[in-house]
Amino acid sequence: MLFKVEMTVNIPSSLPVAQVEEIKAQEKAYSQQLQREGKWLHIWRVVGQYANVSLFEVKDNQELHDILTGLPLFPYMEITVQALCAHPSSIYFEKS
Amino acid sequence: MLFKVEMTVNIPSSLPVAQVEEIKAQEKAYSQQLQREGKWLHIWRVVGQYANVSLFEVKDNQELHDILTGLPLFPYMEITVQALCAHPSSIYFEKS
Amino acid sequence: MLFKVEMTVNIPSSLPVAQVEEIKAQEKAYSQQLQREGKWLHIWRVVGQYANVSLFEVKDNQELHDILTGLPLFPYMEITVQALCAHPSSIYFEKS
Amino acid sequence: MLFKVEMTVNIPSSLPVAQVEEIKAQEKAYSQQLQREGKWLHIWRVVGQYANVSLFEVKDNQELHDILTGLPLFPYMEITVQALCAHPSSIYFEKS
Amino acid sequence: MLFKVEMTVNIPSSLPVAQVEEIKAQEKAYSQQLQREGKWLHIWRVVGQYANVSLFEVKDNQELHDILTGLPLFPYMEITVQALCAHPSSIYFEKS
Amino acid sequence: MLFKVEMTVNIPSSLPVAQVEEIKAQEKAYSQQLQREGKWLHIWRVVGQYANVSLFEVKDNQELHDILTGLPLFPYMEITVQALCAHPSSIYFEKS
Amino acid sequence: MLFKVEMTVNIPSSLPVAQVEEIKAQEKAYSQQLQREGKWLHIWRVVGQYANVSLFEVKDNQELHDILTGLPLFPYMEITVQALCAHPSSIYFEKS
Amino acid sequence: MLFKVEMTVNIPSSLPVAQVEEIKAQEKAYSQQLQREGKWLHIWRVVGQYANVSLFEVKDNQELHDILTGLPLFPYMEITVQALCAHPSSIYFEKS
Amino acid sequence: MLFKVEMTVNIPSSLPVAQVEEIKAQEKAYSQQLQREGKWLHIWRVVGQYANVSLFEVKDNQELHDILTGLPLFPYMEITVQALCAHPSSIYFEKS
Amino acid sequence: MLFKVEMTVNIPSSLPVAQVEEIKAQEKAYSQQLQREGKWLHIWRVVGQYANVSLFEVKDNQELHDILTGLPLFPYMEITVQALCAHPSSIYFEKS
Repeated sequence: MLFKVEMTVNIPSSLPVAQVEEIKAQEKAYSQQLQREGKWLHIWRVVGQYANVSLFEVKDNQELHDILTGLPLFPYMEITVQALCAHPSSIYFEKS
Repeated sequence: MLFKVEMTVNIPSSLPVAQVEEIKAQEKAYSQQLQREGKWLHIWRVVGQYANVSLFEVKDNQELHDILTGLPLFPYMEITVQALCAHPSSIYFEKS
Repeated sequence: MLFKVEMTVNIPSSLPVAQVEEIKAQEKAYSQQLQREGKWLHIWRVVGQYANVSLFEVKDNQELHDILTGLPLFPYMEITVQALCAHPSSIYFEKS
Repeated sequence: MLFKVEMTVNIPSSLPVAQVEEIKAQEKAYSQQLQREGKWLHIWRVVGQYANVSLFEVKDNQELHDILTGLPLFPYMEITVQALCAHPSSIYFEKS
Repeated sequence: MLFKVEMTVNIPSSLPVAQVEEIKAQEKAYSQQLQREGKWLHIWRVVGQYANVSLFEVKDNQELHDILTGLPLFPYMEITVQALCAHPSSIYFEKS
Repeated sequence: MLFKVEMTVNIPSSLPVAQVEEIKAQEKAYSQQLQREGKWLHIWRVVGQYANVSLFEVKDNQELHDILTGLPLFPYMEITVQALCAHPSSIYFEKS
Repeated sequence: MLFKVEMTVNIPSSLPVAQVEEIKAQEKAYSQQLQREGKWLHIWRVVGQYANVSLFEVKDNQELHDILTGLPLFPYMEITVQALCAHPSSIYFEKS
Repeated sequence: MLFKVEMTVNIPSSLPVAQVEEIKAQEKAYSQQLQREGKWLHIWRVVGQYANVSLFEVKDNQELHDILTGLPLFPYMEITVQALCAHPSSIYFEKS
Repeated sequence: MLFKVEMTVNIPSSLPVAQVEEIKAQEKAYSQQLQREGKWLHIWRVVGQYANVSLFEVKDNQELHDILTGLPLFPYMEITVQALCAHPSSIYFEKS
Repeated sequence: MLFKVEMTVNIPSSLPVAQVEEIKAQEKAYSQQLQREGKWLHIWRVVGQYANVSLFEVKDNQELHDILTGLPLFPYMEITVQALCAHPSSIYFEKS
């Protein structure tokens, strides 16, 4: 189950700097753990924005929701989710 | 795997009436077969529009894509797909 | 009288955590009471968002308005309402 | 059950003038019959547009859908529907 | 001179409750006075929203502007104004 | 009664050139007659577009609607209407 | 060089009333001085909104920018600028 | 007088290929003449689109309008115009 | 140089079926050649739409533009391009 | 590698004036250094707005991202990035 997820971060300026740094460190560790588990396949930075484009491979919608709402930065993010599947022109195509 | 799908139909006026009627009959049969199989859980008409709101229960994204692109009216539809999951306030809630 | 209602929750960070938890508990009880009464037919979580898609079966517009504005989270929600009716392709179709 | 309905008409220039005139005459008769029955409460022209703002009083969503899809100009209209109810500041207010 | 006016209310949570109640009471009295004068013809609640759809009959644009900016809730409202006129299909039609 | 009206023209390429020229000539004559009558106060071209920004001074909404729907180019125009009134900072301000 | 400028004012409620009154008085004097100089040709109030539609006649883009950013209310305004020129149907038309 | 102009081209597929080629050749010659005259300062292609971003230096709004409506591809273009002026951080800044 | 490209296909119904099939076969061959060259890194189907999400790795903007405008389906596509770069949380992160 | 970048600045009124002035001075020095290095090719002010249109010439997406996120005003900016390339009608055209 493949999904494209786009996340834009808006951290309110009222949040203390030390707290922001701690949340960002937690976010990085959280993301890298999921990448190592093969669930967060790709993460790219959008040029000029505090935003990313990501690809997730999860067993179902519920797992994706749990992953996303578990993000340390979740309260400060706008998130869009788009369901993807195999493209017949892909050279890696193998219909599940 | 639950998805909300919204479909709006725009049949071009250049299509012969007989052909339109045939496509609509095929669409109805196709939809009802999927409803009986328990994959197309709900279909409601949007008041005042040639459009519907539907709920699908499928095994994965690929199955949903194959179902939607197989719709006889697919070439004349605008379709939006939204991934859903269990809501913790639901009295039927049971986290998958 | 069937309606699709979409609710997105935005709780301001200035609200004390204890108060937030109390409002959420009230919201859950309120929602489940209406589900048991057969007025709030379905509630699903939108993947990746603090939002839901719901179906209501009410006797008229006024009852729906009273239910929605009575939500403990109402002051923190964006709500859209869409009137639905029977779809002729539904296998449960029975024109009211 | 009160609804505000906004209709914008776009008749394709390929439709023969005589047919357009006939459809418009049917539309007027259809509308006036519903006005006399007390279901189509108000119809106003939007200044500078081939569009109207209307108020309907119907027994349920299904009746409104049947009325709207029965409009002779329905195939050439964009329609939006908004559910309304009593306003507590109205001097005619009487909660149904 | 007929106008459709749509008003959406957003009262900031920082406003003291007592002050909000007083403004709302003033708003109701202000609205009902204009209804009794025959200038505020209709006011309906939008289902699920702190918003209304209203119809005004005024002698000119200036009078409508003075009425709207005089609303006690004006500083907390988003307002849209649409000029209307007689519709030739109205059974009450009488071109001014 | 002052109104700002914005008009954008889209003439379909299927219309014969001679007919287009005739409609444009009629449009110009129609517009200039209304300018001389003091009803169409201003007409300016939008730079880089087949569009104009206009100001109308009419006795009521109905008169504006009749003027606009009488435009020879009306079937090929998108029109938006905005009600204006006196601005208290205007050096010509005189509240009607 | 003619420009249509639309300005919408949003004064934050945190600004002290006395300061708001002073800024508004400065704004009015500033606007009227430019009207007397023949640079701010027209200013109209948008019905139902704290907004205006204005016409400026300036020697170049730079002068318009300096005028607009010099507005005492500039920090609290949303401004849109549209370049205009002579319309061939204007009875005052004289191509510059 | 500096303006950013964005042009998107949509040539209808019904236009004969030979005619399209001729219009494009005229467009190129027209554009290059204006570039050599120093009026069309820059033209860049938008990646992945049949569109360009251009900068014009003209003596007034009227000249820009005449240039743009004189484009051989004008009937097939969507055009947006934005007035620019000197930026105080530019190392070439010299307020006109 | 990494780019996310989203493509939506709209083939006009007037195109002969045989020609459509030929273009699609060319499109597939063209895409697979670029995938084998390592320039078209990923292509996924958007569920329920005739659209894809793709990732490209190219040496510069010009190469991406040439690839995209060379697509056999280019005349029938809406294309959006977004520049991406390395994300510091990526486990594959290595700043170029 | 050419990019058009549009930046709109929104400095919160809660920021002390002295701090704002310091950030603006840093922004100007930062911008002018990049202009002298030939990376920030153009910067123009948008008339009537605290915004600019800029052109950047960078070696890759990563360099552009580093430049933009290094802007002293970055936390207070909305930024859009558009990839550009050579236009075949440019008299300076030389395909890279």
